[in-house]
Amino acid sequence: MKILVLLAHPDKTSFNHAIAEVAIETLTADEHEVAFHDLYREKFPATLPVQEIPRGASLPRIISRHCSEVVKADGIIIIHPNWWGQPPAILKGWIDRVLRPGVAYTFAEGDSGDGELIGLLKANMVMVFNTSNTPVDRELNLYGDPLETLWKNNMLISCGVKNFYRRNFGVIVTSTLKQRRIWLKEVREITNKCFPRGL
Amino acid sequence: MKILVLLAHPDKTSFNHAIAEVAIETLTADEHEVAFHDLYREKFPATLPVQEIPRGASLPRIISRHCSEVVKADGIIIIHPNWWGQPPAILKGWIDRVLRPGVAYTFAEGDSGDGELIGLLKANMVMVFNTSNTPVDRELNLYGDPLETLWKNNMLISCGVKNFYRRNFGVIVTSTLKQRRIWLKEVREITNKCFPRGL
Repeated sequence: MKILVLLAHPDKTSFNHAIAEVAIETLTADEHEVAFHDLYREKFPATLPVQEIPRGASLPRIISRHCSEVVKADGIIIIHPNWWGQPPAILKGWIDRVLRPGVAYTFAEGDSGDGELIGLLKANMVMVFNTSNTPVDRELNLYGDPLETLWKNNMLISCGVKNFYRRNFGVIVTSTLKQRRIWLKEVREITNKCFPRGL
Repeated sequence: MKILVLLAHPDKTSFNHAIAEVAIETLTADEHEVAFHDLYREKFPATLPVQEIPRGASLPRIISRHCSEVVKADGIIIIHPNWWGQPPAILKGWIDRVLRPGVAYTFAEGDSGDGELIGLLKANMVMVFNTSNTPVDRELNLYGDPLETLWKNNMLISCGVKNFYRRNFGVIVTSTLKQRRIWLKEVREITNKCFPRGL
């Protein structure tokens, strides 16, 4: 399988980077083909310019390459911290620019642009790994865990993805090395389960 | 009153720009002091770099200026389209970089970074104007209108803002000129009501 892995954290020593490393190791060991983007390292340009809005617009090479990869992906893994219940801006920019009409979704013929999106992605499974410094009960009760519905309902279902697995690790800031090792073991197990060898 | 107005839409001819224009006209007529940022026109740099994460980090001039304005604001108006249930990346970048620890929020003494945020903003009222191409029933039933809770619970309450008014205009793509004029009249009335003259 072709698996696209996206990482959005500015600190190379972050737990997000450790998650990405373990996920990629696991995918590679299972003989999947991995396309990996560390959006910060690659300085992904986050701001969607006006000329890219129309369907069929001419795209800079970096964006058309990302579009081509997301279209080809059989699976996607997205790794990012919870910043204000949302992804970091650099990843929101990837969403704004790469999940384009004609690439990730379309409308029914004759639709004026207010109809339901028809998903175009062939990826069957998307995994989202998040990290957070908000304890689970506060995230659920005070904030309503918006990342769950944002990824699942607003983005992935709209783009045609059928299977979704999200795991939020936290609290990061107070976690021990031992705890982090257990979490990374879990990353390996979940990745393996969602993208088994020979699939 | 000092009112900060933020606009995040790439198209100068957009309805978002029309909303901003009417809001600013209304505020100025009511003798408020307006600080206006068209984030696209100003090419706001959206990506929070690693060295800005720590509290007390040294900030580039553009960020410290934004921080100083948000701290001084008695009120804030934010105008943006609904892109995937979230703000455009350029505005998410403003949130990531400007709503900083020590500027927009802090933690109780001795907190390890997983406690409840203590809001530091003095702004008493924040208005959010959104535009959308998703009909209201689908936004509420399929997506759960995440922008309402993101702005209110995740960001504004956490930063100490007590009063919040949000209005979503749509469907934009199929709206008539007449409908848009009625909406702009509403923008004028709401702005006037939330920030009356002589307050």
